[in-house]
Amino acid sequence: MEIVKLKSAGFCYGVKRAINIAKEALIKHEQPIFTLGPLIHNTQVVERLQGYGIFPINNIDQIDSGSVIIRSHGAPRDIIEKAGRKGIALVDATCPFVKKAQDYILKLDEEGYFCIVVGSPEHPEVKGLKSYAGKDNIMVISSSHDINDNLPYKKIGVVSQTTGSIASFKDIVSNLITLAGEIRVFNTICNTTMRRQQESLSLARNVDCMIVIGGYNSANTMRLTEVCRKALSHTYQVEGPEELDPLWFEGARRIGITGGASTPEWLIDDVMQRIQNP
Amino acid sequence: MEIVKLKSAGFCYGVKRAINIAKEALIKHEQPIFTLGPLIHNTQVVERLQGYGIFPINNIDQIDSGSVIIRSHGAPRDIIEKAGRKGIALVDATCPFVKKAQDYILKLDEEGYFCIVVGSPEHPEVKGLKSYAGKDNIMVISSSHDINDNLPYKKIGVVSQTTGSIASFKDIVSNLITLAGEIRVFNTICNTTMRRQQESLSLARNVDCMIVIGGYNSANTMRLTEVCRKALSHTYQVEGPEELDPLWFEGARRIGITGGASTPEWLIDDVMQRIQNP
Repeated sequence: MEIVKLKSAGFCYGVKRAINIAKEALIKHEQPIFTLGPLIHNTQVVERLQGYGIFPINNIDQIDSGSVIIRSHGAPRDIIEKAGRKGIALVDATCPFVKKAQDYILKLDEEGYFCIVVGSPEHPEVKGLKSYAGKDNIMVISSSHDINDNLPYKKIGVVSQTTGSIASFKDIVSNLITLAGEIRVFNTICNTTMRRQQESLSLARNVDCMIVIGGYNSANTMRLTEVCRKALSHTYQVEGPEELDPLWFEGARRIGITGGASTPEWLIDDVMQRIQNP
Repeated sequence: MEIVKLKSAGFCYGVKRAINIAKEALIKHEQPIFTLGPLIHNTQVVERLQGYGIFPINNIDQIDSGSVIIRSHGAPRDIIEKAGRKGIALVDATCPFVKKAQDYILKLDEEGYFCIVVGSPEHPEVKGLKSYAGKDNIMVISSSHDINDNLPYKKIGVVSQTTGSIASFKDIVSNLITLAGEIRVFNTICNTTMRRQQESLSLARNVDCMIVIGGYNSANTMRLTEVCRKALSHTYQVEGPEELDPLWFEGARRIGITGGASTPEWLIDDVMQRIQNP
């Protein structure tokens, strides 16, 4: 049995950066240190950070002092402002690619475009992005079916959740074309996400079983699973080695391994070892 | 046998306007009156205009005096400038929708976008459009296969030939999305063209035989034929009643009739009469 790990698996740039910023905050900033929501969408990493003294909170109202890290997904503007008013120190770990998408929405809104974010309405990055345009000047679309044929706008600006699916983004943009005179599209899907989707898909096509490692709350991991499963029905997502089922590997000669942007390398190694020694 | 004519068949706004401007030119402007290329892509209409004293020329070098009508498709900027230098009076009958597309290219070029025109490189409108950006800053694409994956541009601006196919425009735009960070799309396919394509397609689906009337040099007529033939193989294009073949109608209970933007109503009536009385 051969196990093939995707070369580019492991933390993406934005996640690595957020973890480094969080560790630095322990030295530089007023304690206790909190993160607004889990710092990244990986249970094991968040548990380790708690060991260092970095605690996730769900709501800024839960605290009145200390420092708050804005996680890689960013945060809605009103929450950042509220933290500021409360005198809470803010540490910004927003992924630079997410920041870019926020800036594009700000610009599009200012220049009179109706803004569309292609993504999952419930994802924290998307909730943050939505706050960068006027309340009635932005909507979130997750598939072509959400498009209202009677959009009363002449100019539409479009960005994507940075961990979105490129196929879905293309499909939605092409369906918007007849609805407005001008469509201005910023392809904000980050390169790591695009490359990882493409490479994982190629790998899935060349193995008998595919294991995707990452949090069930991680949009980009869920997307990887979706993409791989389309090519190979024997695709399974796990959060850790304890979820592996030896039955999956019966008769498999090649097993492919990939992981989301917030899946640490040590977790990938743990999973690979457990496959070899169940 | 029932003959169903598309309600919206007949001259489009830009063609009607160009013919009116040409007729007015006979009164208002210095004679002889020429048109740079046939005024519209319809042989019969161009012949009638010659009867009034309006003659097509192929090249501005053919004349040194008189007036020249810029036809509905527009013209390349260098030719307009050359005519100006020669002291030839210019009468601009460029369709306002084509003018809009020209203005968008001018704006995109000025604002640092690499410009792409979706259309047929040999069509006079497209040749004109191409002249509105710097020579090395614009290219014409007629299908997704023409897209070079290594476009070295960060910002791409896209317009369409006003009589282009909406399906092809959507396809090309969606394939450009991964090639640049920003894509700014002006949907310059005119409403008449879009509506006529859609309505002709619906009609083709509900008849046994479809006749498309219009010039073989008319891009929008050729496109209508293409669109209808996809839905109904018994689709035939004719330039006039003399080309009709009675065999086409054998066994047909319903016959659909449509025509291009430069096909006059009288010609449509002639064709319909000939079908009824072969």
